[in-house]
Amino acid sequence: MDSKVLDLIGQKEFLLLKDELKKIRSIDIAEAFSELDKKDTVILFRLLQKDKAAEVFSHLTYQQRMEIMAAMNETQLKEILKELFFDDKIDFLEEMPSNAVKRILATTTDEERKLINQFLKYPENSAGSLMTIEYVDLKKEMTVGEALDYIKKIGMSKETIYTCYVLNEKRKLEGIVSLRKLVLSDENLLIKEIMERDIVLTHTMDDQEEVASLFKKYDFIALPVVDKENRLVGIITIDDIVDVIDRVATKDFQRMAAMGPAEEEYLHTDVFTLARQRTPWLLTLMLSATFTGGIISKYESVLEAIVTLNIFIPMLMDSAGNAGTQSSTLIIRGLALGNIQISDYLKVLWKELRVSSLVGFILATVNFFRVIIIEKVSINIALTVSVTLFFTVILAKVVGGLLPVIAKKLKTDPAIMAGPLITTIVDALALIVYFNIAHLMLGI
Amino acid sequence: MDSKVLDLIGQKEFLLLKDELKKIRSIDIAEAFSELDKKDTVILFRLLQKDKAAEVFSHLTYQQRMEIMAAMNETQLKEILKELFFDDKIDFLEEMPSNAVKRILATTTDEERKLINQFLKYPENSAGSLMTIEYVDLKKEMTVGEALDYIKKIGMSKETIYTCYVLNEKRKLEGIVSLRKLVLSDENLLIKEIMERDIVLTHTMDDQEEVASLFKKYDFIALPVVDKENRLVGIITIDDIVDVIDRVATKDFQRMAAMGPAEEEYLHTDVFTLARQRTPWLLTLMLSATFTGGIISKYESVLEAIVTLNIFIPMLMDSAGNAGTQSSTLIIRGLALGNIQISDYLKVLWKELRVSSLVGFILATVNFFRVIIIEKVSINIALTVSVTLFFTVILAKVVGGLLPVIAKKLKTDPAIMAGPLITTIVDALALIVYFNIAHLMLGI
Repeated sequence: MDSKVLDLIGQKEFLLLKDELKKIRSIDIAEAFSELDKKDTVILFRLLQKDKAAEVFSHLTYQQRMEIMAAMNETQLKEILKELFFDDKIDFLEEMPSNAVKRILATTTDEERKLINQFLKYPENSAGSLMTIEYVDLKKEMTVGEALDYIKKIGMSKETIYTCYVLNEKRKLEGIVSLRKLVLSDENLLIKEIMERDIVLTHTMDDQEEVASLFKKYDFIALPVVDKENRLVGIITIDDIVDVIDRVATKDFQRMAAMGPAEEEYLHTDVFTLARQRTPWLLTLMLSATFTGGIISKYESVLEAIVTLNIFIPMLMDSAGNAGTQSSTLIIRGLALGNIQISDYLKVLWKELRVSSLVGFILATVNFFRVIIIEKVSINIALTVSVTLFFTVILAKVVGGLLPVIAKKLKTDPAIMAGPLITTIVDALALIVYFNIAHLMLGI
Repeated sequence: MDSKVLDLIGQKEFLLLKDELKKIRSIDIAEAFSELDKKDTVILFRLLQKDKAAEVFSHLTYQQRMEIMAAMNETQLKEILKELFFDDKIDFLEEMPSNAVKRILATTTDEERKLINQFLKYPENSAGSLMTIEYVDLKKEMTVGEALDYIKKIGMSKETIYTCYVLNEKRKLEGIVSLRKLVLSDENLLIKEIMERDIVLTHTMDDQEEVASLFKKYDFIALPVVDKENRLVGIITIDDIVDVIDRVATKDFQRMAAMGPAEEEYLHTDVFTLARQRTPWLLTLMLSATFTGGIISKYESVLEAIVTLNIFIPMLMDSAGNAGTQSSTLIIRGLALGNIQISDYLKVLWKELRVSSLVGFILATVNFFRVIIIEKVSINIALTVSVTLFFTVILAKVVGGLLPVIAKKLKTDPAIMAGPLITTIVDALALIVYFNIAHLMLGI
């Protein structure tokens, strides 16, 4: 499909292309844009019908939008903007440089400009910044038949008509009625007789993660957003929530790998931004490794006495880090999905203690035979290493299990307590355990 | 709300409770169950109206379901099952012991039993196992008015009526029409005049992750599933896809932390299952750390000559692991979300080379002054450590960036190439670099 479009562009068959484009979904057209140069981008875009152009536009990357913007005059720009759904318009304006925003706002009505400015002020992760204003509003005195006629008249321009909102004259939300209910109900019933009055709603300043949880819990396809006076200001639809769920998980992946959050996709992020995202945590962790170095230099005499002990330091450190990473990851994910609560900390402790004893015992036993057979060390040294491994795994798993819960309790993001930080902490613990057990068992 | 329910149970006010329950959403009732003991669970469940009981049942945990099952006779069981949506019924049967399944199947009709058995055979991660069969089917010769009347008649028992499927007499899918389109179209138009013929669909054996990608790309709220002969067998709705998206991310989190997949939530998983999930990878990684030990014992003479070099091994290993973890995490997530393709490997290589040079330079510089000031070592040793750090960060980031792409190319899950495995690999590399640079710069 895409290759046909590309062929037609190459052959400059613009009339055929225009017909072909009508048959293709906007998201597929938008994807084809990534294989075009600047000139063809503008040509292809001009061939699209007005409403399709707006849809395609909302799927393009920042750079592609800027290229198209630069090639358009005021009137063309105004046309596109008029066709965009309000939430796409806001998304678009948010990424524009401020002089471009001014240029665009100059083409809108006073009323719309006021609304746009209000929406641009909602913080990035708030429910407000996810909203759209194209919803269906009903009155509770309407009959079902009147409501359906009304929807028929105004529905085309609404993002969803599947959930309708019953408002009073002050635009306060009184009820919700689904199109399903409308279609399945008798035409002569009144809206107030069939509307749902027990409304789950969200506020403009609520966090998007909380909004996503509501969607997951209640299986909604849309959710109303109200302001402080309980007036309906917009709705959030499930397609935007799907993106939020992905974005939240990505943020956790990044935090857990000791990185700052990144706004753009990897391939579209420049080298300096990536470096800035990664350096602070690496520096912090490197500096905190000073302690591990300090531990080794404190016990240098032990290492000098039995140099063989050196051989097992990497294995002990890695195993500790890995064991801790496993536990912290499970707990962080459980906290993020709401399956684990802060109040479960005792359950986590008890579970990790038992799991780690079991896992530690298996690892220590296998290790004992490994070092005797492969490294050919004495039984005493093999025992020292294996006993250390056993206790290290337990320590690592308990620390890895509890630190995320503590972070949450302290209102920090638990995702920080993941692999890298846990590894640095349990590495230090592993070394302390190692040298003390060596001291006890080998008498050095 | 919940506390009111609990109070009423405590006071044995069952009539009041029965009324109260009618006002509460089933998911909220299901959540209240977690605070009840076995006896109250059964009592509360019996107070629910039939259809609500089925809804609540589909939200309960395995254990709660078993408790209720045990207290019900054939007739009651049959009632509940009749009210369950087909996909919930399948989910329920999938987790039952096989004798319980037999007991349940005995209460169904021949036709339904055949269908259930067919659905139970779909593999766990397939589109088939997500399907439900309660969809609206239309004929293309119907008018819009006839279609709406038909929906009015059968819609109550359908999971969604927002997307309707146009089938021919062989149940092959000919088109799709949304309720939105039906409501907004003239009553006298024919379905075949307004239906969408360019259908995005999925097959029973397709992977759920691919299905989720289709939902994300096209912003669907339902997607048809066809068999090999292109006959419609069921539909998948967005609420189930939201769960898939969470589950896929959770699976990646677990893989990336070197764990096998877990079916149940952490708090509901027993100790032995958790240990089994964690031990294999820990063992593998521990055994592969034999190489790191081997490297140290090979270069033991270097360490004996300058024991101070020991102090920096943990810092170098940790920094290498952390740097590699950052890159591999970004790439794994990009691959999972489809933002990075296998063919982008050169872009990844080039980007990681530049980012890592920058990050490595900053870390090395800070480290140089740190060890001179804090550890008070000679400039030669400080230089050795810092140059090692510089090259280690580059190596770690290139390895961390490329291994996930290679894994994907080899059709392995890229998520395996995360923190723990990358750490073990780059730890070995870091030591080799360290000892060789020490050999060159310090002449040992």
